[in-house]
Amino acid sequence: MNYRFPEKVNWNARNLILEVAEKGRTIPGFISLAMGNPAEEAIPVELIRACAAEVLAEDPIGLLQYGPMAGDADLLRWVKDRMVHGKGCAAEGNQGILLSGSGKGLGLMPRTMCQEGDEVYCDAFCFLNTPASVRNVGAIPVGIPSDDQGMIPEALEERAKSGKGKYIYLIPNFHNPMGITIPLERRKELYEVAAKYDLLIYEDDPYGDIRFAGEPVPSFKSMDTDGRVVYAGSFSKTLSAGLRVGFLYAPDGLIRKFAAVKSADGQEPMLNQRIISRCLSKLDFNEYLKSISQIYGRKCALMAESLRQHCSPRCRVLVPEGGLFIWVEMPADVDMDAVNDAVIDAGVGVVRSAAFAVDESEPGHAFRLNFSALPDDKIARGAEIFGRVTRQFCDKI
Amino acid sequence: MNYRFPEKVNWNARNLILEVAEKGRTIPGFISLAMGNPAEEAIPVELIRACAAEVLAEDPIGLLQYGPMAGDADLLRWVKDRMVHGKGCAAEGNQGILLSGSGKGLGLMPRTMCQEGDEVYCDAFCFLNTPASVRNVGAIPVGIPSDDQGMIPEALEERAKSGKGKYIYLIPNFHNPMGITIPLERRKELYEVAAKYDLLIYEDDPYGDIRFAGEPVPSFKSMDTDGRVVYAGSFSKTLSAGLRVGFLYAPDGLIRKFAAVKSADGQEPMLNQRIISRCLSKLDFNEYLKSISQIYGRKCALMAESLRQHCSPRCRVLVPEGGLFIWVEMPADVDMDAVNDAVIDAGVGVVRSAAFAVDESEPGHAFRLNFSALPDDKIARGAEIFGRVTRQFCDKI
Repeated sequence: MNYRFPEKVNWNARNLILEVAEKGRTIPGFISLAMGNPAEEAIPVELIRACAAEVLAEDPIGLLQYGPMAGDADLLRWVKDRMVHGKGCAAEGNQGILLSGSGKGLGLMPRTMCQEGDEVYCDAFCFLNTPASVRNVGAIPVGIPSDDQGMIPEALEERAKSGKGKYIYLIPNFHNPMGITIPLERRKELYEVAAKYDLLIYEDDPYGDIRFAGEPVPSFKSMDTDGRVVYAGSFSKTLSAGLRVGFLYAPDGLIRKFAAVKSADGQEPMLNQRIISRCLSKLDFNEYLKSISQIYGRKCALMAESLRQHCSPRCRVLVPEGGLFIWVEMPADVDMDAVNDAVIDAGVGVVRSAAFAVDESEPGHAFRLNFSALPDDKIARGAEIFGRVTRQFCDKI
Repeated sequence: MNYRFPEKVNWNARNLILEVAEKGRTIPGFISLAMGNPAEEAIPVELIRACAAEVLAEDPIGLLQYGPMAGDADLLRWVKDRMVHGKGCAAEGNQGILLSGSGKGLGLMPRTMCQEGDEVYCDAFCFLNTPASVRNVGAIPVGIPSDDQGMIPEALEERAKSGKGKYIYLIPNFHNPMGITIPLERRKELYEVAAKYDLLIYEDDPYGDIRFAGEPVPSFKSMDTDGRVVYAGSFSKTLSAGLRVGFLYAPDGLIRKFAAVKSADGQEPMLNQRIISRCLSKLDFNEYLKSISQIYGRKCALMAESLRQHCSPRCRVLVPEGGLFIWVEMPADVDMDAVNDAVIDAGVGVVRSAAFAVDESEPGHAFRLNFSALPDDKIARGAEIFGRVTRQFCDKI
């Protein structure tokens, strides 16, 4: 039969990241710098295994039977404590909600806030799932240009004048894909635009705890005097991506509505939340973050050094202060598809900016390179091969 | 600030089930027959614990790192095999998708198929989350009356003439809340109406494997010659509700779109899927289902016997052939709220039909009693107390 899908789900973006992975599978010894996986050596396997055994031994029925819709109360308390005492956010008027990965929040936000035709403002190069989740409800993701400090407030304001905007989506720390951290002053300016145009801010912070250089910048949530900011936190980069545990911390009035919308989907798995909660109870979390951030810092430095050595001097290598990605800007006169194919043919996978372009007609001139997923030698080698290819294309012009 | 929620999420249904639980908390010794929890003694705790330890020991990184969006390949194979060889469904043209509980499919269906104003047809007394998930996307759940054989085809056809319908939601086996199993002939009639009005069928079958009397009836999916049926299956009532593992088995063209919509939310936890998969590999599943169905059958018989003894003869007790619930119809002249309050005051929680009414103005005259969640003595005692209260209200009139 002919399925009568509604207009809103009849969009088909190419997933250029998956295409790189597909091509790579056919090339022996392929080095993929295309994914966003955390470093394996930063996953506390033994701790998680021990905690899983403990919680399953102590209260099996509590984990294997239906449980409270709100999820694990201990983890919710931890979230509140962390947001208030660890990140300087207001306790009053805000609360957490636990999700199967903070990625679930990406979908929950537009499902709860948007109707067809509403606009959502995000970076012109943005984490893929964000525009996807916005399109899925018939709303419109609008890409806003950025400079080295992140989204440009004037450009945001220009688009927000439409009056159709519901929220701004931002990754303020170690942006995916660009690696940028938004400085405090810029955050204040963006918050002001949000206030002026009655926009919420969705502050997605999956990488914020992985800082290996520079100083932490106050979160949007910590400057939220209006009840405007939804903060999304994750344990995927700090404890385990596969367990799928994340949270939102947001004003009571929003959390209540999120919970109402979400409740029709049923509850989330308690086992996963309680494993995370037990791990946290056994860790000095700040010390733990320091130790895993060192791993990421070492890998980032390795890649940055290799890129500095081997890339064309016409490339601009943006080294982040944390997170998982280095962004390499190419000269505007280079054929990005040709470079991309040549890099793959040379046995390395990277992701061209087009993969992240909210507006397909503005594919950009940059590559995202991941430095977290592979062992050190492959990171250096992959970056070297990538660098040599850039020389072929940039220096001969 | 004033949150500009879209119209579609500005509905507020009372959750009468939670209200019963709330009231019960204040009453010492309260016996709740209000929930839908599986029997604790039917959860294979030791097996699950052993399987969790095994899979975490064998491939910890595979479980704790990001994994394939499609989920565990072994479990997907099991699903296909079960649907084809265990339930007589077509292999060709259909495939599975794994979800964090089949409840996630309830939301995925309208998110994928409906735009604002579309209609979804469900039983007039329906599992609560279904109309909620439909309303959440701005579509309209339409309650269709049923008789002892389930949804009435003529009544469905009458409403389907609007041309606005997208799908029919059905629980064909051991309906929640009514306990009804739709006979084969009625299934064929409903399928014909679906075909005539170009409607999909969402066949929700969380209870189908818990049959303790009568003979299995072929599923809608097994008679699906048009690619019209989405079958939702669950391990919540057979292995563990808390692990949250379920699936859809549906035509390729629908699954592809479900996967596309879902992918923006990120992947589901692999650990949970692999625990279930490992459990299944160690069980003769059909034998296992027989053994746990006996537990449910015993509990159901206990409750039915107690109700027969103690209820007013003016009550009609509908004893199901499987599942978790007995439906007790009350005389039309009884004040349902008064009975409900009196039952609670007597220390027992049951759920009045109003809790499941798609149309608030048609609250009905019945109660749902759960026989699975409590130990045998409390089931009998709770049913006895409920029965005595019905006599007070029905027999004095």
